[in-house]
Amino acid sequence: MNAKDKIENRMTSTQTMLCIGLDPDISLMPQKFGKSRKPLFTFCRLVIDTTYESAAAFKINTAFFEKYGTDGIGELKQTCDYLRKKFPTIPLLLDAKRADIRSTNLGYVSFVYDYLNADGVTLHPYLGSEALKPFLDRKDKAAIILCRTSNQGSGEFQDLRVKSKGKTFPLYEIVAQTVVSKWNRNGNCLLVVGATYPSELKKVRSIVGDMTLLVPGIGAQGGEIKKVVRAGLNSKKSGLLINIGRAILYKGSAEEIGLAARQCRAEINLYV
Amino acid sequence: MNAKDKIENRMTSTQTMLCIGLDPDISLMPQKFGKSRKPLFTFCRLVIDTTYESAAAFKINTAFFEKYGTDGIGELKQTCDYLRKKFPTIPLLLDAKRADIRSTNLGYVSFVYDYLNADGVTLHPYLGSEALKPFLDRKDKAAIILCRTSNQGSGEFQDLRVKSKGKTFPLYEIVAQTVVSKWNRNGNCLLVVGATYPSELKKVRSIVGDMTLLVPGIGAQGGEIKKVVRAGLNSKKSGLLINIGRAILYKGSAEEIGLAARQCRAEINLYV
Repeated sequence: MNAKDKIENRMTSTQTMLCIGLDPDISLMPQKFGKSRKPLFTFCRLVIDTTYESAAAFKINTAFFEKYGTDGIGELKQTCDYLRKKFPTIPLLLDAKRADIRSTNLGYVSFVYDYLNADGVTLHPYLGSEALKPFLDRKDKAAIILCRTSNQGSGEFQDLRVKSKGKTFPLYEIVAQTVVSKWNRNGNCLLVVGATYPSELKKVRSIVGDMTLLVPGIGAQGGEIKKVVRAGLNSKKSGLLINIGRAILYKGSAEEIGLAARQCRAEINLYV
Repeated sequence: MNAKDKIENRMTSTQTMLCIGLDPDISLMPQKFGKSRKPLFTFCRLVIDTTYESAAAFKINTAFFEKYGTDGIGELKQTCDYLRKKFPTIPLLLDAKRADIRSTNLGYVSFVYDYLNADGVTLHPYLGSEALKPFLDRKDKAAIILCRTSNQGSGEFQDLRVKSKGKTFPLYEIVAQTVVSKWNRNGNCLLVVGATYPSELKKVRSIVGDMTLLVPGIGAQGGEIKKVVRAGLNSKKSGLLINIGRAILYKGSAEEIGLAARQCRAEINLYV
């Protein structure tokens, strides 16, 4: 099954649009994990085991692992392997924000798909589709393109007014238009739109039809579930992977983490 | 000494603008390396040892190492450690093309600067300076921002016409204008401009003054040294790090690799 179908199946069969963001930060975990030999993996395993029922997908951010060099990459691999083996029907998305020229991207493709066996990866659009071909050609995987990012200053370039066909559009809309009309020939593209920008989310939804959108930025960054769901649902009352990380991961005990995930899922569904 | 001074010192003292691109590809190396336990490190060490006299900097591309997971990252670390220890005055640039939101970038900063001890790293501009603050705040390091990339299809977004102050400019020019006027407060920014686009390189040079430009794309990608030097020199007849990888690395024996590097350096200097 390709990644697109896997994501949609999981959302439908489990009635959830909650994506759990695995951003393991030792300074925020209960102290006992910091003393573990493999704190990142041990903590992520706990989060996976206690939240999987609520999860439409897990999104693993590579920066939190790379920080620790080979040890971190080893724990990243273990986390991916664990998820793959124990919960093979739950999509594993790698938030690595890669993109280089075409030949170099082959190395990243090997890392993400052969080594880590992820279902999809986040990608910068700046080099264009010709460069991203090794990702876009993978019909079985999801190419998740940054469109409107969740950070406070994302408008610096993403809001620039671009001339196109006698009109002007903000750059992020041009990215959305381009991905949906040209890059998505294999039906394997998703876009990233921050929860912190509900009106931009609504605009992107109007451009991309039913395409699934990955929406980070709930909680610590200021995004709100209600606004995201109201702005971003597609025609099937679905099409959102609403990522929540810190607001679930650092709740305390396993029970509290599991409860937080169930509550997030329920809050999302409240507005569907 | 900060990275900017280190780069300029090395260029001046050694009279070279050649940046050696360490992109170790096992399928292109002499067979004996493929049989080594650490082919990437062993090959890079050979290249470093035979080319360092010609090198203004070494640029290490992470994708070629990440491909091999923890083993690859281990060899990346070894390569960086080797370079740092043996040739501490030669700048070590990491071509990792990272960029995430601010808090996440802290992880990448640790990877690049604490773990690998690089002097600089390539970065995507799409998320803006607010997100890149953890990189831009490192006065001692070089933030090397993608401006006009060397790939054939780089114009897809980079040539979009952006409205600004009643005129329109291609997006890559806006990136150059923004970096030089706003992002470079610590004097630690460089830009990436592909050798395959000499007229765009000339334009960027006219925008950024004497800022050093990292110029990949010579050789296999079609860029020519003569055109790059003529288009890109700054007012001090310097300011270019002309990256050459494949055209040096895969020449055959150690002698041939060293000779190729000397020839590239000499060809660059011919046009200065």
